[in-house]
Amino acid sequence: MPGNTFGHLFRVTTAGESHGPGYVCIVDGVPAGLELSEQDLQRDLDRRRPGQSKVTTQRQESDVPEILSGVFEGRTTGTPLAILIRNRDQRSKDYRDIKDKYRPGHADFTFDAKYGVRDYRGGGRSSARETTMRVAAGAVAKKLLHQRYGVHIVGYVTQVGHLRAEVSDPASVTLEQVESNIVRCPDPDMARQMIDLIEAMRRDQDSIGGISEIVATHVPAGWGEPVFDKLKADLGKAMLSLPAVLGFEYGAGFAVATSRGTQNNDLFVAEKPDHDSNPSCSSGALTSKRIQTTSNRHGGMLGGISSGMPILVRCAVKPTSSLPIEQSTVTRRGEPTTISTKGRHDPCLLPRFVPMAEAMMALVLADHCLRQEALRDLA
Amino acid sequence: MPGNTFGHLFRVTTAGESHGPGYVCIVDGVPAGLELSEQDLQRDLDRRRPGQSKVTTQRQESDVPEILSGVFEGRTTGTPLAILIRNRDQRSKDYRDIKDKYRPGHADFTFDAKYGVRDYRGGGRSSARETTMRVAAGAVAKKLLHQRYGVHIVGYVTQVGHLRAEVSDPASVTLEQVESNIVRCPDPDMARQMIDLIEAMRRDQDSIGGISEIVATHVPAGWGEPVFDKLKADLGKAMLSLPAVLGFEYGAGFAVATSRGTQNNDLFVAEKPDHDSNPSCSSGALTSKRIQTTSNRHGGMLGGISSGMPILVRCAVKPTSSLPIEQSTVTRRGEPTTISTKGRHDPCLLPRFVPMAEAMMALVLADHCLRQEALRDLA
Amino acid sequence: MPGNTFGHLFRVTTAGESHGPGYVCIVDGVPAGLELSEQDLQRDLDRRRPGQSKVTTQRQESDVPEILSGVFEGRTTGTPLAILIRNRDQRSKDYRDIKDKYRPGHADFTFDAKYGVRDYRGGGRSSARETTMRVAAGAVAKKLLHQRYGVHIVGYVTQVGHLRAEVSDPASVTLEQVESNIVRCPDPDMARQMIDLIEAMRRDQDSIGGISEIVATHVPAGWGEPVFDKLKADLGKAMLSLPAVLGFEYGAGFAVATSRGTQNNDLFVAEKPDHDSNPSCSSGALTSKRIQTTSNRHGGMLGGISSGMPILVRCAVKPTSSLPIEQSTVTRRGEPTTISTKGRHDPCLLPRFVPMAEAMMALVLADHCLRQEALRDLA
Amino acid sequence: MPGNTFGHLFRVTTAGESHGPGYVCIVDGVPAGLELSEQDLQRDLDRRRPGQSKVTTQRQESDVPEILSGVFEGRTTGTPLAILIRNRDQRSKDYRDIKDKYRPGHADFTFDAKYGVRDYRGGGRSSARETTMRVAAGAVAKKLLHQRYGVHIVGYVTQVGHLRAEVSDPASVTLEQVESNIVRCPDPDMARQMIDLIEAMRRDQDSIGGISEIVATHVPAGWGEPVFDKLKADLGKAMLSLPAVLGFEYGAGFAVATSRGTQNNDLFVAEKPDHDSNPSCSSGALTSKRIQTTSNRHGGMLGGISSGMPILVRCAVKPTSSLPIEQSTVTRRGEPTTISTKGRHDPCLLPRFVPMAEAMMALVLADHCLRQEALRDLA
Repeated sequence: MPGNTFGHLFRVTTAGESHGPGYVCIVDGVPAGLELSEQDLQRDLDRRRPGQSKVTTQRQESDVPEILSGVFEGRTTGTPLAILIRNRDQRSKDYRDIKDKYRPGHADFTFDAKYGVRDYRGGGRSSARETTMRVAAGAVAKKLLHQRYGVHIVGYVTQVGHLRAEVSDPASVTLEQVESNIVRCPDPDMARQMIDLIEAMRRDQDSIGGISEIVATHVPAGWGEPVFDKLKADLGKAMLSLPAVLGFEYGAGFAVATSRGTQNNDLFVAEKPDHDSNPSCSSGALTSKRIQTTSNRHGGMLGGISSGMPILVRCAVKPTSSLPIEQSTVTRRGEPTTISTKGRHDPCLLPRFVPMAEAMMALVLADHCLRQEALRDLA
Repeated sequence: MPGNTFGHLFRVTTAGESHGPGYVCIVDGVPAGLELSEQDLQRDLDRRRPGQSKVTTQRQESDVPEILSGVFEGRTTGTPLAILIRNRDQRSKDYRDIKDKYRPGHADFTFDAKYGVRDYRGGGRSSARETTMRVAAGAVAKKLLHQRYGVHIVGYVTQVGHLRAEVSDPASVTLEQVESNIVRCPDPDMARQMIDLIEAMRRDQDSIGGISEIVATHVPAGWGEPVFDKLKADLGKAMLSLPAVLGFEYGAGFAVATSRGTQNNDLFVAEKPDHDSNPSCSSGALTSKRIQTTSNRHGGMLGGISSGMPILVRCAVKPTSSLPIEQSTVTRRGEPTTISTKGRHDPCLLPRFVPMAEAMMALVLADHCLRQEALRDLA
Repeated sequence: MPGNTFGHLFRVTTAGESHGPGYVCIVDGVPAGLELSEQDLQRDLDRRRPGQSKVTTQRQESDVPEILSGVFEGRTTGTPLAILIRNRDQRSKDYRDIKDKYRPGHADFTFDAKYGVRDYRGGGRSSARETTMRVAAGAVAKKLLHQRYGVHIVGYVTQVGHLRAEVSDPASVTLEQVESNIVRCPDPDMARQMIDLIEAMRRDQDSIGGISEIVATHVPAGWGEPVFDKLKADLGKAMLSLPAVLGFEYGAGFAVATSRGTQNNDLFVAEKPDHDSNPSCSSGALTSKRIQTTSNRHGGMLGGISSGMPILVRCAVKPTSSLPIEQSTVTRRGEPTTISTKGRHDPCLLPRFVPMAEAMMALVLADHCLRQEALRDLA
Repeated sequence: MPGNTFGHLFRVTTAGESHGPGYVCIVDGVPAGLELSEQDLQRDLDRRRPGQSKVTTQRQESDVPEILSGVFEGRTTGTPLAILIRNRDQRSKDYRDIKDKYRPGHADFTFDAKYGVRDYRGGGRSSARETTMRVAAGAVAKKLLHQRYGVHIVGYVTQVGHLRAEVSDPASVTLEQVESNIVRCPDPDMARQMIDLIEAMRRDQDSIGGISEIVATHVPAGWGEPVFDKLKADLGKAMLSLPAVLGFEYGAGFAVATSRGTQNNDLFVAEKPDHDSNPSCSSGALTSKRIQTTSNRHGGMLGGISSGMPILVRCAVKPTSSLPIEQSTVTRRGEPTTISTKGRHDPCLLPRFVPMAEAMMALVLADHCLRQEALRDLA
């Protein structure tokens, strides 16, 4: 089975290469009646866009989407959306001299081993530019989730190299805070230091890794499909399918390793619901009170099903593999050689990673909200 | 879409609850001609079995599988395998008094919110006992992978609480080393300390978390299906679908956050292949030399496709939520109460986690090997 | 992708062979809260059972199902059902002498060509005995459809050889009429002639084909997923997946070939809904009147979506291939030989085909009702 | 689950509406290394194109495809193809006056009931114009099947109204014969009569139905996945997913109803293979001889698996529902009214149906060839 489709009910299929004519995605499973226009996609595409600031790659792409189907008179019709973004600033000559070499840390070798074909133009399908389509589709998912359930998704950067922001209450971070600086860290002081570090990396012809956190609030209890399609499993898959992600955790994450049960269990309490509180999506509750936990080490998921507490996940993103300095490698014929990647690259992937990760969170949640709608109980 | 099926071409569907009559799985997509009997499944089932040692739960289950179909005259026929394991030691009376309470850290509340039904008998479908079926199916996958490609999968425990084993060469850890002690840590000194810690936990009526590492060697380059079904993404999903896993990483994992590109990139070299080396599975290579990397920070996957280097992943497992001491919680009606779980539980999940994680690794690799077989290039 | 799973949201996976230990199915996607017991499955299993009358095979199987999971305190829990039926009257010695021969009209040769394995015991997986599991799963689907929407499914035999019953109003045929005779034809006079013909076939050591019609009433307008998963397409697939079916049509069927548009179009009218009328499942209608058509040449489906009119399909079933008289064939080594099938077979498949076809109709409708629930519009 | 994806390994997803900006499809699962250009798609698109002759609709569409991805230096790369065709001659004013009326025989009412939205422009997604994408994707599938296995697919018209062509040997009909006349009937005399009948229908403001036959030769034995994804089942689904198809049969089809087993069974023989004969795709055969049948009432499929004999299917296509004469119907508000469809329509769908049906046959076979590659036995 080929791997370019994501989701079951809210289902995205993408195509396109970095230096081909453009990218296309088909979003199937969007319920009818959702107000939608290209403007809804543009905001997140602009947050993902190359050339947006001094800490990102300088490739210039306007990334203007065209919706080719599925919308009539300003609303979705229930039929599939097709979204097209043409490539503009392709400059494939940049890549001519690496045609027969395998770039370290890149997918050149593995694509070649897999397909027997080397599309050397900027990584072809392995370029992170494919995430434009994820972001476009994710914007549709976000709108559906917000309109139907009030779900709100926000991501941000918590760590660049050894610089670590302290975010005391992830669920209260706002988009405005995140967008107030070019590195997308809600802690302004730390943001400044991160920007300095990234600029230093560019000067050094090096790159640096980091960590991003993504939070979804107002997700009703009951989403996620045990035993294999647990919400945590599908979120993990979604994030790990993004380029450069080497680690995923939710809630307490790896810190559980050193934790005892008595410390780690979040305790349940029941409270009168606020007026703006999270609607329950099932008849399960025998009470009109809202059941929550006093802490959120479980990251909003128990048994792989949302608990109604904020969903909180974290991704580790590696330093950009493309480096302008010379590295040793081999050719397709197995001869030793050296390579330096002259293309335009991000010295740190994190600032542009945020909208990608938000989009993947949205795609997973949209799929699971529809799955839960389908299989709701008979009571 | 319900969530009890895993994989696309090598496809496992499971059913069963902790205190019902038993568990069933159907394994579809097993190529014909594989020698197989119940004995092949028993070995890993015994490694997963409760009651196997003093550091695990004392529930007694022999977990003897019956293969009901798909095997004729000792070989698979290409038709689906059905595997049945009946529950023996169910003691559902143990659970009667928690019938209307939500156990902290468990899926009781979220299952109730999702389905509107409370199967209070030992967690019902949310019990980790469902992993018997994963282990049984995983044993079939292991055999296929080993026979067709020489793939070898081994997992082990690297950390329990703050006790951390140093495993210098993950790819050389043997099953014998792992099975030489009841905690399944290849470092015998550390194993002894871990056992002591787990026994202390049981005495304290507490539990402790940890980390397990799983390695697959001799995986050919070329497995994994970008852009969504990358091998790393499907491995992440597989591991995160296991109970109690809150974190997943591969290769350098979260350590990439503090890493620079110049440090993190693994460099390619080409060598004459050994006689027993890994077969390439594609015509991609223009050379008869084996292309590898001098380090393995990429954990055997680049661009989400296997590189031919050992696949190396790591899972964070939380401390058991079921605790015999009293914890505060609420009832289904939202009234405050306390609970203590009298069932028989593992003070540390890690020793029995190892075969579960190996099984999930095997299921992912078996699925992806068939996917790669299907889509091999025309050259 | 292996082929033993049917449906997406209401999803059935089956395993088992004619002369192995037994059959298993897992039914995933059953909403929680449905009252269910083994008795609900038994009724249709008895209608499918071999040995039920003089016009069927004399193999004796009680076909008693055991539900192993997914039901607690008499109701479904939302977790997967596993259903087990053990084989009793296997007599595999009957098949020993055809071990190396290909039976004409059977799947012996094609299974051998596909899998390289010959499970000669009664056809193995290709035996129509696998439909027990479809019937069991179909009984669950019927119950869900009836309880949630009032859908009613009934099948019957309209033709055996040249004997053709006239059924003037398919939507009014009752289960009682169908079950009033052993050939399951609602026209009692024709039923008697059909029974005589089938008995003559058995005496002649021959077999005879026929046609069955299946009707679903009270299906709401709006089920079916264009453009590929149209309701007509999925019903066609479902019926053609049954053994011995060589043709499928709905509504006017093949008769449209000689029809003009002015004759063939069914005209819309709007009427005040009856009290027991079909609920609409969408906000599409701008009227409280019930929109229907004055005729039903479209068989209840327009554009592949249910129209609210009765769903009406028809299947052509071939004469049993297994014949006791001698026929020429070849061995696995390609040598000419003769064969006569001594097993116990139906001289006409139609009487037992009816519950199988009803089950497949139910599986398709249950899947599509859940799909429509998932993707309902936002209005 | 939304319904705009077809196939599992060779997988097509389409989007687009009759009067929107255009159509897009993504074809995922095309093996790398296949020579491919837009010209390969154009031939069949031209055969499907409106306005191609006097017996088809006069809408003018050039239907020129653009391949946006998946091809590099003239060959497929293993990554997904995106294909775009923009609409040109849309004239949506034609449809303004039917905006609130349900056209008899069309999907207007059922789409409205399903989605709550009325895209009145030429049927929107329900327009048969969506088959452009099937034909484009089918052209890729045909090329793959032909290059890898020598499979050849040809369709033709056998019946228009009561005019029935006799095609004595379906497997020997050539594309040249089919394309020698505008009605695509390989019998030239009957073709002339059919053309006259269709022209008479246009003059009468009426339309006429018919039957088309599609044949695939050189399909190896062993394709098809019991028990649900039998080749016959997937072919049936594929054809029934096409607009206007109300019946499907293969081989002897509905004629089996009146047939006896002794007449209906095709007998096996073994022959020395010709030099150009069909390659077997499995190790099943214990003989170097080619095993075939002396007749082909089974239409090349036994037990739902290809037998190596020609695959032969037949579809019943209804008369066009859109008619320029006045018919009675209702409005969305349930008021009685009349309607006459002024758009440009085919008086008989059959001539343009042929390439659509060939495409669907190709998509099914391409998917099943990859499925068989994936699951081949270990011997």
